[in-house]
Amino acid sequence: MTLDRFFPFLVWGRRYGRDDLQGDLIAGVIVTLMLIPQSLAYAMLANLPPEVGLYASTVPLLAYAVFGSSRTLAVGPVAVVSLMTAAAIGQVAAPGTAEAAGAALLLAALSGLFLLALGLLRLGFLANLLSHPVVSGFISASAIMIAVSQIKHVLGVAGGGGAVYEQVYSLVLELPTLNPVTAVIGLVALAWLFWVRRGLAPLLRRWLGWSGRLVDVIVRAAPVVAVALSTLVVYAFSLAERAGVAVVGSFPAGLPPLTLPPLDAPLAVDLLPAAVLIAIVGFVESVSVAQALAAKRREHIEPNQELIGLGAANLAAGFTGGYPVTGGFARSGVNFAAGARTPLAGVLTAVLIGVVALVATPLFRDLPNAVLAATIIVAVLSLVDLGKIAEVFRYSTADGLAMAATIVGVLALGIELGIVIGIALSLAIHVYRTSRPHIAVVGRVPGTEHYRNVERHKVLTDPRVLAVRVDESLYFPNARYLEERVMALVARNPKVERVVLICSAVNLIDASAIESLEALIHHLRDAGVAFDLAEVKGPVMDRLERSHIFPLLEGRIHLSTHAAMMAGERPAGTTAAA
Amino acid sequence: MTLDRFFPFLVWGRRYGRDDLQGDLIAGVIVTLMLIPQSLAYAMLANLPPEVGLYASTVPLLAYAVFGSSRTLAVGPVAVVSLMTAAAIGQVAAPGTAEAAGAALLLAALSGLFLLALGLLRLGFLANLLSHPVVSGFISASAIMIAVSQIKHVLGVAGGGGAVYEQVYSLVLELPTLNPVTAVIGLVALAWLFWVRRGLAPLLRRWLGWSGRLVDVIVRAAPVVAVALSTLVVYAFSLAERAGVAVVGSFPAGLPPLTLPPLDAPLAVDLLPAAVLIAIVGFVESVSVAQALAAKRREHIEPNQELIGLGAANLAAGFTGGYPVTGGFARSGVNFAAGARTPLAGVLTAVLIGVVALVATPLFRDLPNAVLAATIIVAVLSLVDLGKIAEVFRYSTADGLAMAATIVGVLALGIELGIVIGIALSLAIHVYRTSRPHIAVVGRVPGTEHYRNVERHKVLTDPRVLAVRVDESLYFPNARYLEERVMALVARNPKVERVVLICSAVNLIDASAIESLEALIHHLRDAGVAFDLAEVKGPVMDRLERSHIFPLLEGRIHLSTHAAMMAGERPAGTTAAA
Repeated sequence: MTLDRFFPFLVWGRRYGRDDLQGDLIAGVIVTLMLIPQSLAYAMLANLPPEVGLYASTVPLLAYAVFGSSRTLAVGPVAVVSLMTAAAIGQVAAPGTAEAAGAALLLAALSGLFLLALGLLRLGFLANLLSHPVVSGFISASAIMIAVSQIKHVLGVAGGGGAVYEQVYSLVLELPTLNPVTAVIGLVALAWLFWVRRGLAPLLRRWLGWSGRLVDVIVRAAPVVAVALSTLVVYAFSLAERAGVAVVGSFPAGLPPLTLPPLDAPLAVDLLPAAVLIAIVGFVESVSVAQALAAKRREHIEPNQELIGLGAANLAAGFTGGYPVTGGFARSGVNFAAGARTPLAGVLTAVLIGVVALVATPLFRDLPNAVLAATIIVAVLSLVDLGKIAEVFRYSTADGLAMAATIVGVLALGIELGIVIGIALSLAIHVYRTSRPHIAVVGRVPGTEHYRNVERHKVLTDPRVLAVRVDESLYFPNARYLEERVMALVARNPKVERVVLICSAVNLIDASAIESLEALIHHLRDAGVAFDLAEVKGPVMDRLERSHIFPLLEGRIHLSTHAAMMAGERPAGTTAAA
Repeated sequence: MTLDRFFPFLVWGRRYGRDDLQGDLIAGVIVTLMLIPQSLAYAMLANLPPEVGLYASTVPLLAYAVFGSSRTLAVGPVAVVSLMTAAAIGQVAAPGTAEAAGAALLLAALSGLFLLALGLLRLGFLANLLSHPVVSGFISASAIMIAVSQIKHVLGVAGGGGAVYEQVYSLVLELPTLNPVTAVIGLVALAWLFWVRRGLAPLLRRWLGWSGRLVDVIVRAAPVVAVALSTLVVYAFSLAERAGVAVVGSFPAGLPPLTLPPLDAPLAVDLLPAAVLIAIVGFVESVSVAQALAAKRREHIEPNQELIGLGAANLAAGFTGGYPVTGGFARSGVNFAAGARTPLAGVLTAVLIGVVALVATPLFRDLPNAVLAATIIVAVLSLVDLGKIAEVFRYSTADGLAMAATIVGVLALGIELGIVIGIALSLAIHVYRTSRPHIAVVGRVPGTEHYRNVERHKVLTDPRVLAVRVDESLYFPNARYLEERVMALVARNPKVERVVLICSAVNLIDASAIESLEALIHHLRDAGVAFDLAEVKGPVMDRLERSHIFPLLEGRIHLSTHAAMMAGERPAGTTAAA
């Protein structure tokens, strides 16, 4: 039913059982523990007040639970999107102002509308424009940017903004102003978080033989320990007041408010490019993880429905005091590992975060920013994959160049320009590749009716007939190339009277290629050369029959290469009889 | 030799004979007769003084003769590029000012540098981004824009600028101010030019049996008659002074001056996008006509050398008082038909136009602008091809949409935005098409070792083995789609234990597809399903062996589909013996 398709919860809701509930309850609680510090940290990364992070972790999750097609994707604030949000709203408003919060709402709403539009128009395929090297390079580069931007919080220096090299420069300059107590807390937290990941996790896994899933859940819960202990220490010794340790501070308690994104057309125009990129990057991240998790249980996700689910989540964020959200890699993994069966786990998480926002905000007053920054650094550094760069270069220089350009672009020119450069370069490489398809002159394998590349096989050729096989569909990137190559071959072989184009690898002939074929046929005619086709596939043939060049080809399209080669000869039977 | 490659004239110059000279002389004279009114008319279209048109028809032709690879391409000012020039310089300077002339020089120099860079880097393939529907739609739409913009000159009304509908609106409003004498001259010239084309040409061809080439030359010379007669009439009756007929007027005589394009970085940045588009559009126009003409004599053109030739011509235009030039459709056809054998015909044309610029400029003082406008209208309206739009739509809706978007974009938003929209839409359609390749589940044709699509043929399948054939290279536009489709097929067939991917149509696996294959293999493993490949082509295999996923595939790559299908079974021989 159509309703089932647009509301996936109707499907899993009908069959919901006690087993499902148990898994969802446990997963919901564990994800909540992980999400509380993340919400606060990523809001800090986005230059937004802490409560915005909590709000973004409530109603958007409910919206995704209704419309999303993944059973186990955990939606909410994530690092990369938070950084992109900071960059986008930083261009239109000063941090900490009401304008900045309004811009975040508008950004979320615009992203949501864009995702919904893509989903309803079934344009999810556009996300394919982000090739893997671009996504991978982009994530590594943003992770480095994010980590660098958090060092100042860990050390308690003022630090500056701007590009990565500017931030590093200002960190070095301001190192003498470092707050020693903050630095100790921050560095201890950093060390603890790294140790849990690199030391404790292998220990539990290898020495105690604990399962990978359980260890994963424990590793992801480590930030909660750091948050709780450091908050206690700061509170006990009044370090915020006495040692100047920067803390989250007081922020209003309450359920997410109903908000209206500012209806400001020029602001919307300014934010639109960022909203589009945030939507696409968020979608690619979500769909990758959703697909990986669905596959483990032989479930299936529907990319266009994912667009609708994420669109609804972001639209909800825009109307309930949040900022752009998406499905997170690590969080979804924990959700899955902790046993989540359905999006009800997300609903529970949303409710629990709502309760936290309502009653527990005073608990975070003495939480040091240094610890939040440390959790961000540890989380994002696991995304940096330098080995991947070497691996991609080894596999394909062109793909490696696209990746390197994205990394350099993101680090030197900013996230948005970096992605755009990466996409443009991938497309250029793709057009370049398809613009020069492999074209082989073929000859007959002696004693058979098979035809093979003259350069690789000992084959028989007829100087009067040029048989050319093109190993690619014929469309605009290569239309003119085929024309050039065939004409060049004819110019080099003055005895040629007929050209046979073998179309066994041609899955499509587009309108540009039709024009090229028409030009080719006329050029060949002007030079006194006939033109035949062979092995045209059914769907290609259907279309050719509709085209205006069909009269030029009638009676010149042969079922097999051999039939085409023999077409100019006296019938084989005649020769045999003579 | 390398020198021969970079200086094509070394090749034809060595073998130059008396026959060549005769052809080149006649063609040079005829093209000059055609080019004189065109130079003045297109300069008017570009909102530049008449002498700029003449200058652009001299030294740039010499530069092309040295570096161009086409024997018969006639370079110079053309209608579409003149319109683009008017639009580009209109945004940075008022018409008729020294700034406008300087901007035209800079535009030509930038276009020239861009073309040279593309040629030297051998990036001519980028012109393939302009698909045929986009070029065709763009030319029709610009021709309509150009024709509409000239009506005011034909009628002698003030008229306005702006988009097409604005121009039509202001024409209607200002119709009462029409200059009757101008309108009579303009409409008579228009009628004459149309009659020569539609009435005289068929007459000569059919009734007198004259050859197509000769008739073509006569038709193209008709503007000369209109120019000469109308100038005489205006001169004899002093219509410029007594009846207010707008005329070309006095302009300085002399050879093309040496000029330096303004070295103004911000201006260059403003003009760069227009320069790039002018370069690409000019290159596409040139290469199409050069290729058509070369083919007729089994000659060959080299697209990257054409870039260098056109780049040199435009650079020359920037330094000798001209504006952007390219190879023209009609003019090159006349050059060819009149018997041109080598670029020496172009050299002769350049010299003759130089003589005209030096001594004959007073002759054009009384040439009415209305007649120049009429020659432009007749020339460009032959480029409007409404039948083509219907033809493209009939052949392919997607290509038709790209064409329609280009036309609407050019007419409503201007030339540059229109082209960019067309290119973006073509690329999106291309990505959409390749993002959803044909994927068939295949089964064994009974009694053979052939495997065919289960939906089209009666074949045998094994519920434990899923054999999937993908009819496209695996690269980023479709990498994720393959993963989704295979996982969906496995989700629908719970008995499946092994997936065999048949790669007979796969010419490339890029880095994105490698990641997708890796994810697919892991997802399948998580679901307890093995993954094999079959019929991997040689170059693809070479690359696979270098990739990090090769260990996952070792021993699982089979030469044929049949071998892959049998790999899981007891050897066939065993069964037979039992």
